[in-house]
Amino acid sequence: MGAIRERITGRRLAPGARLPSIRAFATAMAVSKSTVVEAYDRLAAEGAIEARRGSGFFVAGPPQPFSPADLGPRLERAVDPFWVSRQTLDAGDTVLKPGCGWLPAEWLPQESLRRSLRALSRAPAETLADYGTPLGLAPLRLWLSRRLAGHGIEAAPDQILLTESGTQALDLVCSLLVEPGDTVLVDDPCYFNFHALLRAHRVRMVGVPFGPNGPDLAAFEQVLSEHRPRLYVTNSGLHNPTGASLSPVVAHRLLKLSEPFGLTIVEDDIFADFELEPAPRLAAFDGLERVVQIGSFSKSLSASVRCGYIAARRDWIEGLIDLKIAGSFGTGRLAAELVLGVLKDGGYRRHMDGLRTRLARAMGETAARLHAIGIEPWIEPRGGMFLWCRLPEGLDSAVIAQRLLAQDIVLAPGNVYSLSQSASRFMRFNVAQSGDPRLFAALGRVVKDR
Amino acid sequence: MGAIRERITGRRLAPGARLPSIRAFATAMAVSKSTVVEAYDRLAAEGAIEARRGSGFFVAGPPQPFSPADLGPRLERAVDPFWVSRQTLDAGDTVLKPGCGWLPAEWLPQESLRRSLRALSRAPAETLADYGTPLGLAPLRLWLSRRLAGHGIEAAPDQILLTESGTQALDLVCSLLVEPGDTVLVDDPCYFNFHALLRAHRVRMVGVPFGPNGPDLAAFEQVLSEHRPRLYVTNSGLHNPTGASLSPVVAHRLLKLSEPFGLTIVEDDIFADFELEPAPRLAAFDGLERVVQIGSFSKSLSASVRCGYIAARRDWIEGLIDLKIAGSFGTGRLAAELVLGVLKDGGYRRHMDGLRTRLARAMGETAARLHAIGIEPWIEPRGGMFLWCRLPEGLDSAVIAQRLLAQDIVLAPGNVYSLSQSASRFMRFNVAQSGDPRLFAALGRVVKDR
Repeated sequence: MGAIRERITGRRLAPGARLPSIRAFATAMAVSKSTVVEAYDRLAAEGAIEARRGSGFFVAGPPQPFSPADLGPRLERAVDPFWVSRQTLDAGDTVLKPGCGWLPAEWLPQESLRRSLRALSRAPAETLADYGTPLGLAPLRLWLSRRLAGHGIEAAPDQILLTESGTQALDLVCSLLVEPGDTVLVDDPCYFNFHALLRAHRVRMVGVPFGPNGPDLAAFEQVLSEHRPRLYVTNSGLHNPTGASLSPVVAHRLLKLSEPFGLTIVEDDIFADFELEPAPRLAAFDGLERVVQIGSFSKSLSASVRCGYIAARRDWIEGLIDLKIAGSFGTGRLAAELVLGVLKDGGYRRHMDGLRTRLARAMGETAARLHAIGIEPWIEPRGGMFLWCRLPEGLDSAVIAQRLLAQDIVLAPGNVYSLSQSASRFMRFNVAQSGDPRLFAALGRVVKDR
Repeated sequence: MGAIRERITGRRLAPGARLPSIRAFATAMAVSKSTVVEAYDRLAAEGAIEARRGSGFFVAGPPQPFSPADLGPRLERAVDPFWVSRQTLDAGDTVLKPGCGWLPAEWLPQESLRRSLRALSRAPAETLADYGTPLGLAPLRLWLSRRLAGHGIEAAPDQILLTESGTQALDLVCSLLVEPGDTVLVDDPCYFNFHALLRAHRVRMVGVPFGPNGPDLAAFEQVLSEHRPRLYVTNSGLHNPTGASLSPVVAHRLLKLSEPFGLTIVEDDIFADFELEPAPRLAAFDGLERVVQIGSFSKSLSASVRCGYIAARRDWIEGLIDLKIAGSFGTGRLAAELVLGVLKDGGYRRHMDGLRTRLARAMGETAARLHAIGIEPWIEPRGGMFLWCRLPEGLDSAVIAQRLLAQDIVLAPGNVYSLSQSASRFMRFNVAQSGDPRLFAALGRVVKDR
C-alpha cells in the first residue's frame, strides 16, 4: 500500500493511470499475489485507486476540494428559526455551545451504548440487514407501552409507531392531520424547530403566551374561537425553552376548552427522562383520544442513533404507517435494536439517576454564575437541562448571540423561540454545556458594556 | 431475579405491589445487598418491575396485549401504491417474498457489517452520542464524491447531503422544489413508492411510457408542452421495475427536450452497485445543473442501517439542509459511520463482485423457471435483481397477487407501478427472492387454471 501511495503522491502514477497488474507488482515487490490483491482492495476501499471490472486498477482522480461551507458557523446568517440549529450543529469541537439543545457526549450512557453495539455485532443477519416491520421493533414498542403506562397513558404496542426521530414523528403527525393553509397553535416561546417544521408544512401559526404552569388559558380560549386551529403542539413536562411544567389544573382546563373545537394536541415528551417529579400528561388525562404523544431517545441516550415514536389512537396508526413508508420507507431497525439494548442494560437506570443529579448540580451552579453578572432565571425548572433567563434591561439577546459567535460561543437568543418576537431580552442556557468560565467572562463583558 | 419472577407469575406479587426492600430481600435470600440491587435493576430494565424514585420498586402492570395489526400481511387490503410495501414489510419469516424490493439478509455483506459494528463500539464518545453536522459525515461525502466521479459526475463533498434514506432524499428534494398542485412527471411503470411520496406532497402526476432504452421521447415531449411538469423522477441505470437502462442517445435527447421547459430531473441511482456495465447518468451529461442525483445503501449494504444522499447544485444545498433539520433534525451519524466502515472494509468490493455474479445466475434460473410456465421477461436486464415479466393472456396480476397472498406468497403486481393502470398483465420478480419451488408450483397452477 505504501509503495503505491508513494507513486501516486510523487505523481509517478498520475490520476487515471493504470496500476501495475497484480502479478507484475507481486513479482516486483517480492510478495504473494494475494498480498497485492489485499493491498489494492484496501486502497480501492480508501478511494485512492479504483477497480474497473475486467480492466484492472486505476489511480482515482484528485478529491474535490472542500468549500468553506463545511467549516463551521457562519457569522452572516440572520437569526431565523434555523439559526440555533445550524450554528450548534455546524460548530467545531473548540466552540462553546451553551445554546445547544443536547448533552455533552460524555454525559450520555456510553458504556451501555458500547455494550449494545458489541451485542449487535453478533445479532442474526436479519437484524443487521433487513427493513423492520412498518410499526417498528415490537419489543421496543412494548417497552414504550410500559413506560407510557408509568405516566398513566394506556397505549398498546400496536398504538405505537417507531420513527426515525422525534422530529420525524411530528412531521408525520402534521402530514396526517394538517393541510397547507390550516392554522396550528404553538406556545410562545416554544422549541424553534416547531416553527421551522410547521413552516415547511405551509401552515399558519398562531401563538399563545406560555406561563410557569402552562399556556395562558384566557389567551388559549380566545385563539381557539378566533382562529380555529387544527393542532396544538406543546411539551407538558419540562417545556422547551422555559423548563416549566404543566399543572394538573391547567391540563384539565386546556383539554376542556379544546373539546368543543375538536382541537388535536401533539404532546412532545422528549424530556420525560429528565423530570425529577413527573408532570401531568395531557395524553393521560385525555386517554389518547384527541392527544398524540411523540418522543425520542436523542436527549437521554444518543442523538447519533436515530429513533423516535408516536403514540396515537388506533385508527390513526394505519395512515401514519403509510406516510412513513411514503417519506422514509424503512424504520431504522438497527437503531431501534441499539436503543433497546441500552434500555435493557442493567446500568442504564443508574446512569439516568446519576445524570439527573449531575444536571441538578449544574443547574444550581449555572444559575449562581449567571446571577453574579445580573442574568436571572425566569423560573427554577424542576429538572432538565435548560435555564430560560432574562437579561438586564437594554440588552438584545440576538445582538449578543451574534457578537459572541465571533468569539466561538454559540448562544440561543430568545426570539428564535418566539412567534411574536417578544423574547428579545431572553436567552436559553443549556446548563450541561455552560461549565466553561469563558462563557461567563464573555457575557459579563457584554453586560458591563451596555 | 428468578425468585421475584416466580412471585410475580404466581401472583403473590400482584401488578402495582411494592417489592421487598433491598435490605429485607438480601437478608431473606442470604445474598449481598449489591446482588439484589443488580437483580432489581435488571428486572426493571426488562420491564417486569419499575423503580419509583424515593419509594422503591413495584411490580409493573400487565403488558398490553398485541392486536392482530401486528401479525403479518392483511388479505383485505386493496392493491394500492402501498400494497407491495405493506405486504412485504409485514410478512413473517415463513412467507415467500418474490415481490419485495430487497435482497435476502444473507446476501448482504454481513461480515463487513459485523466488523464495522465492533469498530464502532470502540469509537469516540462524540461518534456514539452527538448529532452529526448538517451535511453529514465528511469522509462518507468524500467517498460518495469519488464514486460519483467514477460515473462522470462532478460533485464536491459540499454538494452532497447525507439523508436518512434514499426515500427521504426524494422527499427533501420535493419539499424544496415542488408546491402542492404542481405537476410531476414519472415513468409508467415506475417504482410504486414514487406515487405514494408524490401523492403525500399533493402534486399532480403525469406518466410517460417507459421503453427498453428509457422514456418514450415523443410522449415525453408532448407531456412537457402540455403539462409543464416541474420535476421528472426516474432511474437511469437498472430502472425499477423494468430493469431497463437508459441509452446515451435517449439521455441526450431527453435533456435537450427538457431544457427549454426548465424541467428539473431527479435521478434515483439506488441500484448503481448492481450494474454489470454502467449506464449513462443524466447527472453526468448535465453536470448537476438541472439534474439532482439521489441514492442510498439500502439495497447493497443494509436496509436496517438508514443512510442515503442527495448530490445537487451548490445553491440548493442550503435549502435542503434547512428542510432536513425541519423534518428530521439530526443526520444519523452512527448509521453513516457504520456505512463508511463497511465501504472501507477490504472485503466489501469482493463481496459486491460475488453478489453481482450470484444475481446474474439467479436471474438466469428464475427466467428459465418462469419460461417453463409461460411467463416471459419483457427485456433481459443488464444486472440487478428485478425481472419485469408478461403473464399469459387472460391473467390479471393483481388477482393472482391477492390469491397467492393467501398461500403466504407476496407478489408485486404490475399495476402498482403503473399510473395509467396499463400493466395488469405484468409482474415484477425479485430473482434473489425467487429460489423456492413453491413459488413456481403456485404460479403454474394459476396459469393452468385460467
